[in-house]
Amino acid sequence: MTSSKPSLYTALSPALLHLYDVNHAIVVIIDVLRATSTIATALYNGAKCVIPVDSVAKCIELGRQIDGITAGERDGMIAEGLEHGNSPFEYSRDFINGKTLVLTTTNGTKLLHMALDRGAAQIITGAFSNLRAVCDYLISERQPVVLGCAAWKDRINLEDMLLAGAIIHHVKTNFSLNCDSSHISETVYLEARKDLYSFMKAKDASHYHRLSGYGLEKDIHYCLTPDTASVLPLYENGKLIVL
Amino acid sequence: MTSSKPSLYTALSPALLHLYDVNHAIVVIIDVLRATSTIATALYNGAKCVIPVDSVAKCIELGRQIDGITAGERDGMIAEGLEHGNSPFEYSRDFINGKTLVLTTTNGTKLLHMALDRGAAQIITGAFSNLRAVCDYLISERQPVVLGCAAWKDRINLEDMLLAGAIIHHVKTNFSLNCDSSHISETVYLEARKDLYSFMKAKDASHYHRLSGYGLEKDIHYCLTPDTASVLPLYENGKLIVL
Repeated sequence: MTSSKPSLYTALSPALLHLYDVNHAIVVIIDVLRATSTIATALYNGAKCVIPVDSVAKCIELGRQIDGITAGERDGMIAEGLEHGNSPFEYSRDFINGKTLVLTTTNGTKLLHMALDRGAAQIITGAFSNLRAVCDYLISERQPVVLGCAAWKDRINLEDMLLAGAIIHHVKTNFSLNCDSSHISETVYLEARKDLYSFMKAKDASHYHRLSGYGLEKDIHYCLTPDTASVLPLYENGKLIVL
Repeated sequence: MTSSKPSLYTALSPALLHLYDVNHAIVVIIDVLRATSTIATALYNGAKCVIPVDSVAKCIELGRQIDGITAGERDGMIAEGLEHGNSPFEYSRDFINGKTLVLTTTNGTKLLHMALDRGAAQIITGAFSNLRAVCDYLISERQPVVLGCAAWKDRINLEDMLLAGAIIHHVKTNFSLNCDSSHISETVYLEARKDLYSFMKAKDASHYHRLSGYGLEKDIHYCLTPDTASVLPLYENGKLIVL
């Protein structure tokens, strides 16, 4: 019966998150380029946990205190004072296994803290890298879901919408969808899914434009590839761990 | 040369309008179901002007003062104390010719006043009803453009995005588009354009759902039909007039 299915909503920008009730929902933080792709990859490659912090200063301080790897970007570049960037390729098993990653990013960690402040019942992170793990979890939990796109400085972006659309496409029969943003996301995903990279390029997506300007096409390719790092990062006691 | 083209951005919700510089831009207010469709229709059918006000109380007061037709909806129904609703079919030439329409709606007039408060250089209203008139104007003016979707209580809706996409599709060679929301809107429009009504219905768009529940399929059909009321409503001195 339709009415007994839990709801699923999509907030395409952090500036729209307040429109949705997260108190009883699993919030999926989506920041495809590159925070949540990197989180999945680091955890898949054996990181003990990932601690998302919302400022570079906190990242440096905490990194010292716990002897963690400090990493993060501002405007797509390694932030001053941090050791590592936001590329998933920096977090191979050789490097990250058994270590703690303290991560700050422009949009993703900010959104995570917003969801936390608004009392989200549960927070997980999603990327193409762990698409199937996220979908399987949402289907099995039977709870209301809010897909939260990190966007770019509150401007809606294509890649986060594409992942929202991909998740929706895979889980929609299990949820009640009364949300145009969700239908729109799925429509765009279905249009793009044959070749996500070419679609991003053809649309000259703003983030594609920005990152490819830094020579990061390889990162973009990886971040648009499904199921390369099949883990479910769950936020618990201030850190992301593998469920 | 690309760089000499003016910019075009799309704000898919009033809650995102602040992200865009409207001070030097023509802002197109889009509220397809049904405010801006009704505005175009009333003006096309000879209304002297349309005065958009942001509350029912103001609508009643002003209507008395100037002997205007008071009209408006709250949550899709005629608001208490007003004479008329928000259906374009109420504003035939026989009825509205030579008269002043004082209009308040849930989302459209609110957005117009937001754009005004933020210092928009110029404000016009757009609907499928006057699609070509809007496109011709934007192309001829060669100014930066912000397409402002009225949405539904700040939630992005499909029909306003479809019109944004239609406008973008027709004018894009004249503008510089560095805006994922614009590319997304055009993508969804191209997917839907063969039959906008069926697309809205198939996606069970939230507004389609709401209005069809009130038996307003006829309104929806009309509001998705291009160029039935080919005028350009321009906001000047507190009222919308035909340019």
